[in-house]
Amino acid sequence: MIQIFVTGGTFDKEYDMITGTLFFKDTHLEKLLDRGHCRLDTNIKTLMLKDSLDMTPEDRKLILDSCIAAQTDKIVITHGTDTIVKTATLLAENIKDKTIVMTGAMIPIKFGSSDGFFNLGSSLAFAQTLSHGVYISMHGRYFNWNNVRKNKEKGIFEVVE
Amino acid sequence: MIQIFVTGGTFDKEYDMITGTLFFKDTHLEKLLDRGHCRLDTNIKTLMLKDSLDMTPEDRKLILDSCIAAQTDKIVITHGTDTIVKTATLLAENIKDKTIVMTGAMIPIKFGSSDGFFNLGSSLAFAQTLSHGVYISMHGRYFNWNNVRKNKEKGIFEVVE
Amino acid sequence: MIQIFVTGGTFDKEYDMITGTLFFKDTHLEKLLDRGHCRLDTNIKTLMLKDSLDMTPEDRKLILDSCIAAQTDKIVITHGTDTIVKTATLLAENIKDKTIVMTGAMIPIKFGSSDGFFNLGSSLAFAQTLSHGVYISMHGRYFNWNNVRKNKEKGIFEVVE
Amino acid sequence: MIQIFVTGGTFDKEYDMITGTLFFKDTHLEKLLDRGHCRLDTNIKTLMLKDSLDMTPEDRKLILDSCIAAQTDKIVITHGTDTIVKTATLLAENIKDKTIVMTGAMIPIKFGSSDGFFNLGSSLAFAQTLSHGVYISMHGRYFNWNNVRKNKEKGIFEVVE
Repeated sequence: MIQIFVTGGTFDKEYDMITGTLFFKDTHLEKLLDRGHCRLDTNIKTLMLKDSLDMTPEDRKLILDSCIAAQTDKIVITHGTDTIVKTATLLAENIKDKTIVMTGAMIPIKFGSSDGFFNLGSSLAFAQTLSHGVYISMHGRYFNWNNVRKNKEKGIFEVVE
Repeated sequence: MIQIFVTGGTFDKEYDMITGTLFFKDTHLEKLLDRGHCRLDTNIKTLMLKDSLDMTPEDRKLILDSCIAAQTDKIVITHGTDTIVKTATLLAENIKDKTIVMTGAMIPIKFGSSDGFFNLGSSLAFAQTLSHGVYISMHGRYFNWNNVRKNKEKGIFEVVE
Repeated sequence: MIQIFVTGGTFDKEYDMITGTLFFKDTHLEKLLDRGHCRLDTNIKTLMLKDSLDMTPEDRKLILDSCIAAQTDKIVITHGTDTIVKTATLLAENIKDKTIVMTGAMIPIKFGSSDGFFNLGSSLAFAQTLSHGVYISMHGRYFNWNNVRKNKEKGIFEVVE
Repeated sequence: MIQIFVTGGTFDKEYDMITGTLFFKDTHLEKLLDRGHCRLDTNIKTLMLKDSLDMTPEDRKLILDSCIAAQTDKIVITHGTDTIVKTATLLAENIKDKTIVMTGAMIPIKFGSSDGFFNLGSSLAFAQTLSHGVYISMHGRYFNWNNVRKNKEKGIFEVVE
């Protein structure tokens, strides 16, 4: 079984036509798994729906505790990209016996041009095949938690040399 | 480097507004990798654009020869789902030293509801992480070439018990 | 009030992933009006879901009778493009006191590249503003029923000179 | 000929993946006319790409001057919805001999769920059929410039009773 934890991020942002800004309503994960005709044994749990810049230490603690409590060693987490490495670090320092794949999207799933559906496919595959550890899955690749950073000028993840 | 071979299948079918039928024009693979902000080192080569029910022994021979000649041990092949297992069998019987991930789509990529983009993400991930062998990647899962079949009534791939 | 009659056509065709062919399941009209934030007083009635090449004289009689019975003089009909002019002719010969706008799509609405949503917007506007008569609404234009034909090589509607 | 003036608004907003905010890059009007298989004689001119809350008196003057100078009496203007009525008022007070249809979108065209393509279809139809005057075209309807307001709580346009 693969546990999917939803925490928000660009992935799940929607357009609020009253205010003209982006906001969270619900996760799109279930619909995406349907569209992918996904036939993995998955469980989706929404821990929070937050821009990762707004995450508090309590939020990260909740993610950590949820991963520890999960009854499987295969976990996928959707997360905002801005602080995804920070959360990955907390998880890696405290969990050694699970494969945790964190992913996000550069563009919200509700946009036609979103990368989120592709990233979800990659992340579920990595969760099934990578050895225990904490990984960031973006751009079709996986990165080890301790040698990746988001290059905010270019909007991409890259290996820290 | 990951070699991507395009052979057609539902994945790349388009709607022909003159005849009202589905046909092939070009592959969508390059656009999909762009949309996925893919940063893998990939090479895309279109071997053919065919419904897999129309594939001849010569077509399968071309796929086999192309895989053998590929200068990498990581290969993703897009292929129609109806005879994908047949081609997988030919590849598996002749190639032992490469990871070959075959994938397709239940619904054409040009439909809003296609699973193809998700499958592409999974397949690229599996190609990076699975040991040498030939696999079918569908529904977020991978199947070994020798214990999978397409259930044509349900439109799904399933393990042969 | 605008009466919308659904008869099928390319507009409402979907992809059947079991057979790999196009088929009809349900009309998409209601969802499209929602997406358009449409605030017209409309009533949608599905008369049939057919490729217009398969329409029988009885089918056309049903469309005619439904238009005659409609409790409004503003009617939009979605219809396959191949025989839309034939049905328009029957309606025009029998109904003089209503504005009937017939429309369709070159590409099914379920494809990302469909023209159907645009055509629906045009057709509802024409139904509100054109004088009594029977019209074909395609390509952002309206055509009088008696000087239009579908150019099947080009896949467009054009004025008969 | 129908002159289309682009001024920005929600219609043309895109997602900036670097900053996570909405911004303007280019208008989508030309692509939309292509997707609609539009066969009207149109000319598209981008006057500005602005959120209508940021429009200055000089911006509105430019729109007015452009409408006056247009060599046709059929004009469609895409415009942000927040101050569309204000610009409509300026145009109506100064132009009497043209049909000017102003429209926008509640949701950006780059979102799958945008109403913009529908509104564009309606607006082009209204521009061909309504008598001289200034109109707001939204929700499948048209409103006279002098009895419409945007209800900002509901995000809809409604008649001023």
